[in-house]
Amino acid sequence: MLFHVKMIVQLPPDMDPAKAAQLKADEKQLAQRLQREGKWRHLWRIAGQYANYSVFDLASVEELHDTLMQLPLFPYMQISIDGLCRHPSSIHTDDR
Amino acid sequence: MLFHVKMIVQLPPDMDPAKAAQLKADEKQLAQRLQREGKWRHLWRIAGQYANYSVFDLASVEELHDTLMQLPLFPYMQISIDGLCRHPSSIHTDDR
Amino acid sequence: MLFHVKMIVQLPPDMDPAKAAQLKADEKQLAQRLQREGKWRHLWRIAGQYANYSVFDLASVEELHDTLMQLPLFPYMQISIDGLCRHPSSIHTDDR
Amino acid sequence: MLFHVKMIVQLPPDMDPAKAAQLKADEKQLAQRLQREGKWRHLWRIAGQYANYSVFDLASVEELHDTLMQLPLFPYMQISIDGLCRHPSSIHTDDR
Amino acid sequence: MLFHVKMIVQLPPDMDPAKAAQLKADEKQLAQRLQREGKWRHLWRIAGQYANYSVFDLASVEELHDTLMQLPLFPYMQISIDGLCRHPSSIHTDDR
Amino acid sequence: MLFHVKMIVQLPPDMDPAKAAQLKADEKQLAQRLQREGKWRHLWRIAGQYANYSVFDLASVEELHDTLMQLPLFPYMQISIDGLCRHPSSIHTDDR
Amino acid sequence: MLFHVKMIVQLPPDMDPAKAAQLKADEKQLAQRLQREGKWRHLWRIAGQYANYSVFDLASVEELHDTLMQLPLFPYMQISIDGLCRHPSSIHTDDR
Amino acid sequence: MLFHVKMIVQLPPDMDPAKAAQLKADEKQLAQRLQREGKWRHLWRIAGQYANYSVFDLASVEELHDTLMQLPLFPYMQISIDGLCRHPSSIHTDDR
Amino acid sequence: MLFHVKMIVQLPPDMDPAKAAQLKADEKQLAQRLQREGKWRHLWRIAGQYANYSVFDLASVEELHDTLMQLPLFPYMQISIDGLCRHPSSIHTDDR
Amino acid sequence: MLFHVKMIVQLPPDMDPAKAAQLKADEKQLAQRLQREGKWRHLWRIAGQYANYSVFDLASVEELHDTLMQLPLFPYMQISIDGLCRHPSSIHTDDR
Repeated sequence: MLFHVKMIVQLPPDMDPAKAAQLKADEKQLAQRLQREGKWRHLWRIAGQYANYSVFDLASVEELHDTLMQLPLFPYMQISIDGLCRHPSSIHTDDR
Repeated sequence: MLFHVKMIVQLPPDMDPAKAAQLKADEKQLAQRLQREGKWRHLWRIAGQYANYSVFDLASVEELHDTLMQLPLFPYMQISIDGLCRHPSSIHTDDR
Repeated sequence: MLFHVKMIVQLPPDMDPAKAAQLKADEKQLAQRLQREGKWRHLWRIAGQYANYSVFDLASVEELHDTLMQLPLFPYMQISIDGLCRHPSSIHTDDR
Repeated sequence: MLFHVKMIVQLPPDMDPAKAAQLKADEKQLAQRLQREGKWRHLWRIAGQYANYSVFDLASVEELHDTLMQLPLFPYMQISIDGLCRHPSSIHTDDR
Repeated sequence: MLFHVKMIVQLPPDMDPAKAAQLKADEKQLAQRLQREGKWRHLWRIAGQYANYSVFDLASVEELHDTLMQLPLFPYMQISIDGLCRHPSSIHTDDR
Repeated sequence: MLFHVKMIVQLPPDMDPAKAAQLKADEKQLAQRLQREGKWRHLWRIAGQYANYSVFDLASVEELHDTLMQLPLFPYMQISIDGLCRHPSSIHTDDR
Repeated sequence: MLFHVKMIVQLPPDMDPAKAAQLKADEKQLAQRLQREGKWRHLWRIAGQYANYSVFDLASVEELHDTLMQLPLFPYMQISIDGLCRHPSSIHTDDR
Repeated sequence: MLFHVKMIVQLPPDMDPAKAAQLKADEKQLAQRLQREGKWRHLWRIAGQYANYSVFDLASVEELHDTLMQLPLFPYMQISIDGLCRHPSSIHTDDR
Repeated sequence: MLFHVKMIVQLPPDMDPAKAAQLKADEKQLAQRLQREGKWRHLWRIAGQYANYSVFDLASVEELHDTLMQLPLFPYMQISIDGLCRHPSSIHTDDR
Repeated sequence: MLFHVKMIVQLPPDMDPAKAAQLKADEKQLAQRLQREGKWRHLWRIAGQYANYSVFDLASVEELHDTLMQLPLFPYMQISIDGLCRHPSSIHTDDR
């Protein structure tokens, strides 16, 4: 099941740089593990923003929630979610 | 170059059904040609909406504009665009 | 899988009353069938609005989309969707 | 009388973790007591958000206000409320 | 139980004047009956707007919904509702 | 002259409790004096919000401004104001 | 008493030109009479908009409402109102 | 050339009172000098708000910018600007 | 004096094609004359929108207003305006 | 390829003045280098705002992102981006 997620990251400008660096490193590590597992299908940086568009491929709404909640940057994110379906004009039988 | 496009379609409820069907058929034909050419990379229906999220892979901003302007449903669409970049946490060298 | 759906219905004030009545009757019939099948779990009128809050219990995002698209009043609805999860403070193991 | 309540929780990221944990434990205890009493009918987590949709079944607007004001997390919540009525298309005589 | 209701009326500028006059006359008759019954406690015109602030005193959310739905101008209204409680700083035991 | 005022109070969660209590006590004392003088006609708590709807009966816009500016909680309030008139459908010659 | 009023005029593009011209001529005649009477103190066109900022000097909220309601273009206007007071930094005792 | 400016002042509630008083005194002194020079034509307090509507009469956009930037309260202001023109319905040849 | 103008064009989808074509031709002719006169400095299409960003170089706010009002597409445009100044970091003494 | 960028700068009012001055000096130096290289085509201050409109001329979306991310004031900016195309009514073959 595909979910389209927009994540806007808002770290306070006065956050301790070491803490910020650690959060980002942890986030990256988890993001890469989830990509390797095929759960985080796409991950694009939005140009000029500290934000990304992502597509997740997960078994349920519950798994989506659990996945997002464990992101180290979650407390600093503004998140919006849309479910995705195959589009009737798509030429792929499985547009992941 | 990748662009993330959200298209919300708003056909007037009293549009002539034949005209609506023709517009949709033309739209589908063009969308499929652009997909086969590799320009319209992804096309997902947003669940519960007459809307889609798309990712285009084009040579320039100009080509993006020309592509969108020729869509038969363009006059009935509300469009928002974001440029996309490779994300530093992506495991792909080319996340299309 | 549970989805929380808000539907705001906006029929044009000058719609033919017979057509409006037919649409509403068809909508009611389908809504009741989906309730009997256990797919449309909750259906509440929002006080003072021509709108409802609903909870659907479906197998996938795809089924949610297909269900909403077949509603006779869909072309006149403004829809917003949120996925739902069991809440950690709930006393029910299955809060439907 | 049914009320639909959306609660968005916004704890400051730099809140003392012990204080946050205590607030959440107190909130959970009260939420579970109110559920056992039948006053907090439904409690769902909104996927990907630190937020919930709830349905309360209370005797009056006054009781709704008093209930919400005593929630330990109330000072950190953004709350929106809608009254709910039985929907004419519901198959239940009492859709709680 | 008190409810604060804001009603913004939006008649199409090209509505038949006789129909508009009839709707307003019917609305006035019902509004005055509900005032005499003590259910429509306050009714103020908002200066410079075709809109009003009202306070209703009713037995339930259900009665509020039924009352608003039968207003002849309801299909042309944009309505927002808030429940009201006695304020702790009020000098009245019953601030109606 | 009547004015409808909505006041939303936003005390910082980390305000010194003694200071907050003093501000609220001062606010209450002034609010009650203005009610006894007939200037603060109505004062209702909005259910589930730290906010109120009020109706003031004052001699001028100037007096409204001076009254609101002296409220101890003014620096923490978000205020919106509408002038009120007798409604043509009111059954009262003086709907205060 | 001074009121600051913003009026945005939205005539339907397909309105009969003769009717539009008549409405504007009537509006102009009334606006000029109110200016001569000293009630419509200032009237400025907002650059690049079919809109104006106005300052009215009237005896009451009621007179403001009655004045705006009789404007021939009122049904096509979106109006917002703020009361005005002498500013403590003004060098005029009566800043009209 | 006339410009309509709305200034909303947002001093942090915990600002040092001496600093706030100094800022306001400096602002007042400059505002009065600009009024005496005929550059700050009108200055009204918006009732119930820490905000003003102003009309400036200046030689250019550049002078407007320079004037606003030197206001001591500028860092705490939210500013919106509209150019003003003589209104065709005005009875003054020069409506300042 | 420079002004930044955003123009969003919204022609009704059912406008007579001949009328639309005439409006656009007239608009183009005037736009090109104003460009040749040096008054319409820049004119860019916004990618994917029926909209443009423009920079005008005019003698006054009045001339800006008169220029915009005579555009054939004005009745179908949503316009927003900002005054422009030389930026302190610009390397040009006259950044037109 | 041209991009229209709006940058709104929001430095916290209590930022250390030396740090703010350093940030601005670094920003200015980089901005001027990019202008000399022809990449930052236009840079205008928006009148009355701590904000600018800019036009960038870059080889790709990726270069736009990299350019904006290295701006010293980036963490304090709110940025919005639109792609630009030659306008069909432009008299320039290359409207930079």
